[in-house]
Amino acid sequence: MTVNVGVVGLGYWGPNLVRVLHELAEAELVAVCDLDTVRLAKIRRRYPAVRCTTSYEDLLADDSIDAVALATPVSTHHPLAMRALKVGKHVFVEKPLAASSAEAEEMIALAGDCDLVLMPGHTFLYSPPVNVVKDLIDSGELGDIYFISTSRVNLGLHQSDVSVLWDLGPHDFSILRYWLEENPEHVSAMARACVVPGTPDVAFVNLAYPSGTVAHVELSWLAPSKLRRTAVVGSEKMVVYDDTSNEPVRIFDSGVSLPDPATFGEYKLTYRTGDIVSPAISAVEPLALELRDFCHSISDGVIPRSGALLGGDVVRTIEVVENHLVKALGAAALR
Amino acid sequence: MTVNVGVVGLGYWGPNLVRVLHELAEAELVAVCDLDTVRLAKIRRRYPAVRCTTSYEDLLADDSIDAVALATPVSTHHPLAMRALKVGKHVFVEKPLAASSAEAEEMIALAGDCDLVLMPGHTFLYSPPVNVVKDLIDSGELGDIYFISTSRVNLGLHQSDVSVLWDLGPHDFSILRYWLEENPEHVSAMARACVVPGTPDVAFVNLAYPSGTVAHVELSWLAPSKLRRTAVVGSEKMVVYDDTSNEPVRIFDSGVSLPDPATFGEYKLTYRTGDIVSPAISAVEPLALELRDFCHSISDGVIPRSGALLGGDVVRTIEVVENHLVKALGAAALR
Amino acid sequence: MTVNVGVVGLGYWGPNLVRVLHELAEAELVAVCDLDTVRLAKIRRRYPAVRCTTSYEDLLADDSIDAVALATPVSTHHPLAMRALKVGKHVFVEKPLAASSAEAEEMIALAGDCDLVLMPGHTFLYSPPVNVVKDLIDSGELGDIYFISTSRVNLGLHQSDVSVLWDLGPHDFSILRYWLEENPEHVSAMARACVVPGTPDVAFVNLAYPSGTVAHVELSWLAPSKLRRTAVVGSEKMVVYDDTSNEPVRIFDSGVSLPDPATFGEYKLTYRTGDIVSPAISAVEPLALELRDFCHSISDGVIPRSGALLGGDVVRTIEVVENHLVKALGAAALR
Amino acid sequence: MTVNVGVVGLGYWGPNLVRVLHELAEAELVAVCDLDTVRLAKIRRRYPAVRCTTSYEDLLADDSIDAVALATPVSTHHPLAMRALKVGKHVFVEKPLAASSAEAEEMIALAGDCDLVLMPGHTFLYSPPVNVVKDLIDSGELGDIYFISTSRVNLGLHQSDVSVLWDLGPHDFSILRYWLEENPEHVSAMARACVVPGTPDVAFVNLAYPSGTVAHVELSWLAPSKLRRTAVVGSEKMVVYDDTSNEPVRIFDSGVSLPDPATFGEYKLTYRTGDIVSPAISAVEPLALELRDFCHSISDGVIPRSGALLGGDVVRTIEVVENHLVKALGAAALR
Repeated sequence: MTVNVGVVGLGYWGPNLVRVLHELAEAELVAVCDLDTVRLAKIRRRYPAVRCTTSYEDLLADDSIDAVALATPVSTHHPLAMRALKVGKHVFVEKPLAASSAEAEEMIALAGDCDLVLMPGHTFLYSPPVNVVKDLIDSGELGDIYFISTSRVNLGLHQSDVSVLWDLGPHDFSILRYWLEENPEHVSAMARACVVPGTPDVAFVNLAYPSGTVAHVELSWLAPSKLRRTAVVGSEKMVVYDDTSNEPVRIFDSGVSLPDPATFGEYKLTYRTGDIVSPAISAVEPLALELRDFCHSISDGVIPRSGALLGGDVVRTIEVVENHLVKALGAAALR
Repeated sequence: MTVNVGVVGLGYWGPNLVRVLHELAEAELVAVCDLDTVRLAKIRRRYPAVRCTTSYEDLLADDSIDAVALATPVSTHHPLAMRALKVGKHVFVEKPLAASSAEAEEMIALAGDCDLVLMPGHTFLYSPPVNVVKDLIDSGELGDIYFISTSRVNLGLHQSDVSVLWDLGPHDFSILRYWLEENPEHVSAMARACVVPGTPDVAFVNLAYPSGTVAHVELSWLAPSKLRRTAVVGSEKMVVYDDTSNEPVRIFDSGVSLPDPATFGEYKLTYRTGDIVSPAISAVEPLALELRDFCHSISDGVIPRSGALLGGDVVRTIEVVENHLVKALGAAALR
Repeated sequence: MTVNVGVVGLGYWGPNLVRVLHELAEAELVAVCDLDTVRLAKIRRRYPAVRCTTSYEDLLADDSIDAVALATPVSTHHPLAMRALKVGKHVFVEKPLAASSAEAEEMIALAGDCDLVLMPGHTFLYSPPVNVVKDLIDSGELGDIYFISTSRVNLGLHQSDVSVLWDLGPHDFSILRYWLEENPEHVSAMARACVVPGTPDVAFVNLAYPSGTVAHVELSWLAPSKLRRTAVVGSEKMVVYDDTSNEPVRIFDSGVSLPDPATFGEYKLTYRTGDIVSPAISAVEPLALELRDFCHSISDGVIPRSGALLGGDVVRTIEVVENHLVKALGAAALR
Repeated sequence: MTVNVGVVGLGYWGPNLVRVLHELAEAELVAVCDLDTVRLAKIRRRYPAVRCTTSYEDLLADDSIDAVALATPVSTHHPLAMRALKVGKHVFVEKPLAASSAEAEEMIALAGDCDLVLMPGHTFLYSPPVNVVKDLIDSGELGDIYFISTSRVNLGLHQSDVSVLWDLGPHDFSILRYWLEENPEHVSAMARACVVPGTPDVAFVNLAYPSGTVAHVELSWLAPSKLRRTAVVGSEKMVVYDDTSNEPVRIFDSGVSLPDPATFGEYKLTYRTGDIVSPAISAVEPLALELRDFCHSISDGVIPRSGALLGGDVVRTIEVVENHLVKALGAAALR
């Protein structure tokens, strides 16, 4: 079964959805929608067969369209998705799923009632290195996950509508949720709006999980050089995942051995530093895997990896962090 | 004037004090003291002229000795320093200055009353790259300091008596205090005792300063690879200071320009990415500079760079962080 | 004036010429030519306005076409270019200019006689970092150029028709010719056909220039990791140019000072290690600059930076290296 | 059995021999010899039990001394070693073994006649990473060794008495000889005396071996940054050995597969890029292993790893390279 899709929003990310859907065997790119006719014209030139419209109404009215893919500003995710679900269309929506957890819950509930797929675009869940780490965690090769420390920073791309928490945070919070399969129960954070008053552009977020794992997430639009470094420290092995490196995953067979607890008073730790391995990693484009998963979830009735509940959890985590910041620094500091 | 010094404690760090004092023109290494006679014998073999004793009492009783340098466990700093000050000896004490701010204050008060030098060994304040960054901040070349993010991690050296906060924290907290010349007014933190119950071996500390600067400090004895990376992000330039690199200071002439606030509703940021400079940095040993500063502060009556008040501030910062952790995670999690 | 261009050869590189010429204000992409109709169809779909033909004859017969751009196998450069020049068309030809210096000379002579532009596509001469280094050399900032050592290696892309010398060599030999503005007078080399008998896939080439500068060029299709590193060592400063780095040019203010020659017998050298600077470098696409230069050279009658004589020198250098190898290792080892 | 050793020459390297021999169970450091009494005094202070003399004659006359270790200028190796062998003492001599192959042969012959150990100090043969690579080669894990490319460069340490070939060359030529167990049969090279006329400070050396392996060795006292990089490219795997890295050996499971030779005309190569492994490597000091091997070769009558014949081969290789340079560039260019 081929899924007929209409793409809504042709700004920064939308054209990527268009390109990948156009090449995907499982999907048929039927229409694109944007208010900006210049953007539409560009798409028409490259994909003459695709219908172009400025009217979301028209798109929804088209019965040949099975699903919409929304690449519009965060604030529009909820209204656009709700309308699509109400007319029986599956919805793929760029991350974050919604602008608040209340919105997210409403969307999730409606999708459930209508038996429709609602899928947020957490592309990193389809990234090969992220999945190599996922397998290392799941197989127990890393042992207990002591902590995860991650930095996602570089100079550029201030969003005018949202803070760095809503812009970059979904990446790391979705990866943590995917890897750990739990939600944080304690949160503390520090943030600052350095350049544009009211729009935090740097945030340091600490998370503690029920299993005992702790995590630190550094997010910033201001930094001397690009950093995409995540350290996963387990009781058996440690991993560094760096998206900017030619060797995106490095596995360190290193650790600490605690001796017999009987001799505990006089304990002496042993450090083990073993081989380091950079596994070969496939070069598949995550976005293609993601959109294929969307199509499969429609045709096969299975929950996609980047599911609506996971997306809702990510929104809730951001909200909790933001509330913590408001409480700590005062509302003025944030908005 | 030459300062006659006795070194107390010949464990991990003491022999470095011995070596450097022995070579320093401003100092005369007169005696060493340790309870362990094997350690004493080792020193005697290398420095036959130096008096060796197992009795701190003897050292204090020796009128030819002007000053003691303490390289003993943190818990002994207060009692040993107090006794030395009481008999009129200047005191150099390894960082942290004391095990609590109450202790530190008592020591500072006594030193003040007796007009004696009390100096904690915050060696990094004498490190050439730290001072290159200090000069960049003080000269205004970096502009306003938006934030500082620092990681000091690697596998190894669990201290059995103190947590990673007391072991590694003094480095970063003293550097921040030196660079920023202010103390944090808000603190949040997350920590975990991964290996030895009750002894946190990883901590993520967020600090907010009165000037608006925020800082993040990651400290860990558990990490896949050594990291000593500090990013200082200013409104004009940014700096990366990496103690493990051949180019320990890198200056990025990069930044964001906010346009005329009049047009603010529709603002458009401009990013500037300019040259990167790694200044040549002198290769002087910080410990020699530090101990020379100790001697000068005695002979010239000036406050050393690593002064007692700064050392007290560092202890207070650690204490505040620890209290925050106890409140957040429960006392059990920490001790 | 707009130059009407026809692109010939739509294999690996040709589509890039098509894309860039299509966007260039100075050029009008009129036609493309390839024997493979599948390749033609691909281009037709993306550029419906461009004429597609399998007949080079037709292209040459078209009076509206001012110039041809050849992206065909090396062995065809000479015959295709000669035919185009004979019918009065300017010729852009992918590097190397020809398969032998005899061929190159014939092409250069004909272009000269016909007053037509003949330009080899040495794209690196338009690369911003290559030109930053060129400026450093020309301004005298580096001092005398003692030597240049360059490595261009990684796993992949064995050419079936030519050796690594003809495939990768043109890059480095053209850069050296551009920077030094002289041709080597001594050559020695070592090569090996490791994988495909008769097709050398690794070569170590040493060059000595009339000015005294020496150069080493390592070329390989077989290497554990990608390396594009060129060190330029001058008497005043040194430069590392690395095309794979985020900081492609790094300037080292380091050197050796020889003292007064009077005291020469007992000389003592002084080493100077100063700042390291990574200049900000513009992100213009070299291919666009190159094709613009081709158009300007036609409209303004000036010699392009990547001129025919330079291209001929590059071919001659490869030939001399190859002859040296044949003499040293025997013809069998090479072909 | 303990070997009684006298160390001759206390310049740059001699004190390291003294330090290590002093700590070695297999050896007894009996005496040191140097013409410079200041150097002797320094040693006397640190090792009061060691006899200090300015007379090599005295050392040779001392029957309690089994062996001498020579850390003197290259030109003295032959005369000093010959005298020691003649009075029945084993000889350890810093690399290179001698200043010419004629000298080396005379020394080897005499040692053989006298049944004494003559051992050049090729310390790298005892370096753990060099031996990890040796094991990878010997086990066949790398397959056929296609080629080896090595760079040993950085700014500093011009020797006034010898060229960079004699100063740095012994390191790489001894490692190649050790790894490949063969001597080069073809040599080509380029060198330049950039700073001190007559003393080449940069050399590019190409070597071809009987097995088909080729090697390139770049040696320089002038370079923008330290480089100690050796790539070993085999038919099965590739290795990078970098002495300056925290991961000195990296094994790349990468290669090229040539298909069935039957289909050879239309061959299509396959590239395989697999895992990269950095094996954990022991941190033993090579010099201690080397001097222990010297002692064992005396007590057990076995040939040391860094044997006299290997040392002679290294000298001959340098000589052949130098002769090639003289022939190519003229004697004036070299001396």
